[in-house]
Amino acid sequence: MVREALVQLSQGARELRLVPAATRSRMLEILVQTILDNTPLFLQENERDCAEHASHLEPALAQRLALSEDKISTLACGIQDLARLEDPLGALLAQTQLDDDLILDKVSVPLGVVSVIFESRPDVLYQVLGLTLRTGNGIALKGGREATRTNRAMVRVAQETLEKNGFPYRWFCLLEGRESVDELLKHDDLVDLVIPRGSNEFVRYIQANSRIPVLGHASGVCHIYVHPSANVDTALKVIVDAKTQYPAACNAAETILVDRQIAPTFLPLLRDELIRAGVKVRVCSESSHILNHDDIVRDDEWNTEYGALTIAIKVVPDMNGAIEHINRHGSHHTDGILAQDQGACESFVASVDSASVFANCSTRFADGYRFGFGAEIGIGTGKLHARGPVGMEGLLTYKYILRGKGHIVASYSGAAARPFKFSRIPTPSR
Amino acid sequence: MVREALVQLSQGARELRLVPAATRSRMLEILVQTILDNTPLFLQENERDCAEHASHLEPALAQRLALSEDKISTLACGIQDLARLEDPLGALLAQTQLDDDLILDKVSVPLGVVSVIFESRPDVLYQVLGLTLRTGNGIALKGGREATRTNRAMVRVAQETLEKNGFPYRWFCLLEGRESVDELLKHDDLVDLVIPRGSNEFVRYIQANSRIPVLGHASGVCHIYVHPSANVDTALKVIVDAKTQYPAACNAAETILVDRQIAPTFLPLLRDELIRAGVKVRVCSESSHILNHDDIVRDDEWNTEYGALTIAIKVVPDMNGAIEHINRHGSHHTDGILAQDQGACESFVASVDSASVFANCSTRFADGYRFGFGAEIGIGTGKLHARGPVGMEGLLTYKYILRGKGHIVASYSGAAARPFKFSRIPTPSR
Repeated sequence: MVREALVQLSQGARELRLVPAATRSRMLEILVQTILDNTPLFLQENERDCAEHASHLEPALAQRLALSEDKISTLACGIQDLARLEDPLGALLAQTQLDDDLILDKVSVPLGVVSVIFESRPDVLYQVLGLTLRTGNGIALKGGREATRTNRAMVRVAQETLEKNGFPYRWFCLLEGRESVDELLKHDDLVDLVIPRGSNEFVRYIQANSRIPVLGHASGVCHIYVHPSANVDTALKVIVDAKTQYPAACNAAETILVDRQIAPTFLPLLRDELIRAGVKVRVCSESSHILNHDDIVRDDEWNTEYGALTIAIKVVPDMNGAIEHINRHGSHHTDGILAQDQGACESFVASVDSASVFANCSTRFADGYRFGFGAEIGIGTGKLHARGPVGMEGLLTYKYILRGKGHIVASYSGAAARPFKFSRIPTPSR
Repeated sequence: MVREALVQLSQGARELRLVPAATRSRMLEILVQTILDNTPLFLQENERDCAEHASHLEPALAQRLALSEDKISTLACGIQDLARLEDPLGALLAQTQLDDDLILDKVSVPLGVVSVIFESRPDVLYQVLGLTLRTGNGIALKGGREATRTNRAMVRVAQETLEKNGFPYRWFCLLEGRESVDELLKHDDLVDLVIPRGSNEFVRYIQANSRIPVLGHASGVCHIYVHPSANVDTALKVIVDAKTQYPAACNAAETILVDRQIAPTFLPLLRDELIRAGVKVRVCSESSHILNHDDIVRDDEWNTEYGALTIAIKVVPDMNGAIEHINRHGSHHTDGILAQDQGACESFVASVDSASVFANCSTRFADGYRFGFGAEIGIGTGKLHARGPVGMEGLLTYKYILRGKGHIVASYSGAAARPFKFSRIPTPSR
């Protein structure tokens, strides 16, 4: 069943990507209208989902499950933005004249078939649908169990409206049940990328159980290093924001590394400020002596993502000590420095091997929306393909197209070999 | 032992990438001089390797094993080109002003630690060394057994000369023995990319036995489709080149798809031309009737990479039949169309889902050198990361650097949220 659905997606996406950009824009506009027209239906189905599940969920999750007119209209605006966007397919990324009448183009193309596995947060569904439509990818959607009725209504309505308007392309489908995920993970010949959103355990499970490439991150252990040159007020303000603005987020800070030079004066101020903000403070043994505080972090706990109002503080001998700690215990997600010394900032951002490296601002900025990408499909902490907060470019790859007039390689080989020209043709900047 | 070496590489590469671009250029120039100064030593060690192994090797492999003054000077020229090249590290790929004094940079960075596992072809060693030096990556080199003495001499001399000149960075090492490869494949926490070069079986083994991302291709089943509008002389010339110019290459054609409209007239000409060129012809049942030729390709043989002077010919009902055949049986490496009808060419290149798609030229052009990339580190048939012939960009990724002045996310949230500016700052085109 899952395999059949994937084969159909793959075929549907192949048809979809051949229609002109303007047609995909028109389809996006139909989706916007569909969302607006069906707001009452979506709210009604969502109320039934909430009635059944909200009471078993933690408050933050129940909030994510619940739709509102506001959330739905924000969603519609997002899709409207996608409809207006320059089409990303077929963009000429590079062009080289190899010889007379022999031109090599590098052009952007869709990845193929993608699967996004998301939490019980139904506004994600149309976002992903919009992004895959704009980029010409097939999409196997798998939403959280608690949002089943909302997700079903959203997918059914999208399908019906698009078909009614003469766009029968089957580039999307909705999978249900945990078994469908296990089944999907087997088909690495049909699925080009899996984007799991959800708990760290879930992401790790996906990574361990499939040969399909995964875009995502199993953890976000973000650090902030306080350099001796840091402005104390700024440092306290940024650290409190990075920890408390949304503690469950993957880009919230988990460990503060304080330079030994300023530890005796800075640590007491930091502790007081954090406690005032409701944060539980845990410390290394050196900090423990300075603060006379006995909640000591064990050596094997420095990789911990608290995801809550708890923070770990460690004294480091110098910036190199901080960089070593981060490269060893971090998750290559987001790490920052607080320093007025510009040289220190530049050394730090050059040496820390993370997707996002920040100077003098909160780690919470590491996010597709705040980076100006519009929609975000995920945050990658691997190094291959897209990295950091990922927008549309994570759904694209490229192909090389060479157009000749009967050119053969034999002409460019051997003693009388014709030389290549290799002249780079400037392409429009994007 | 292997793990220790990888940890050291990782550290050495981290130091290497912090030195100025001009220093890496200087090191490349020292490598050029090292190669020229030690040519007699390399030839002498290579002669010993050849004396021991050449007679057990197929002629093509023995040729690859043997160095010559010519090969060595070509190699030195290649490294000289790299020394003159603009440094690819720290390139500003995109820049966005998020708000006053809050600027987001996307900059190119090295992948980290790479391993290239190559055949008994010692000229590859300095090429890879040069590419990783230019891109700031650590490199675990593993060469073919038959070139052991040459490889050892090359690595030893490079290390000694660089150290003597004040560049002690240990960013490279030479692994020996098949066991060292198996050991390396376990350390996905230390190695960012493996590039296996060699037999299809070997590449498949690497892909199946490691969680480290692999850049490479397990097979090259390349197709050429002959459209009814094709010029017959051009078609015959291109097909013969694509099959015979170097039949063992991954970009040589394996299957010719002939449109039914022209099959009765074109097939006899094609068969005669191929036989004249020494190619063994195998056919589908429809071609068999037309040609009265009984070497029939079985249904399960259409995925075959002959890698020799053998070719398969199949009649397809139309271009869609050709595209379906290619997307099903191809290896997403390189596929081409021969047609004078421009519309047909454009439909074909848009619909075929391969890394390289060609119109009216030989598939043999799919190669980093012929694409104008200078050195090639591999050809990828996957869709994530670098695809097709891959030069330096396959050894690079990017990071996001955000520089602020104490900016916190709380200012951009809630009822009195400050809006972002998101103004794109133009970056120099590269």
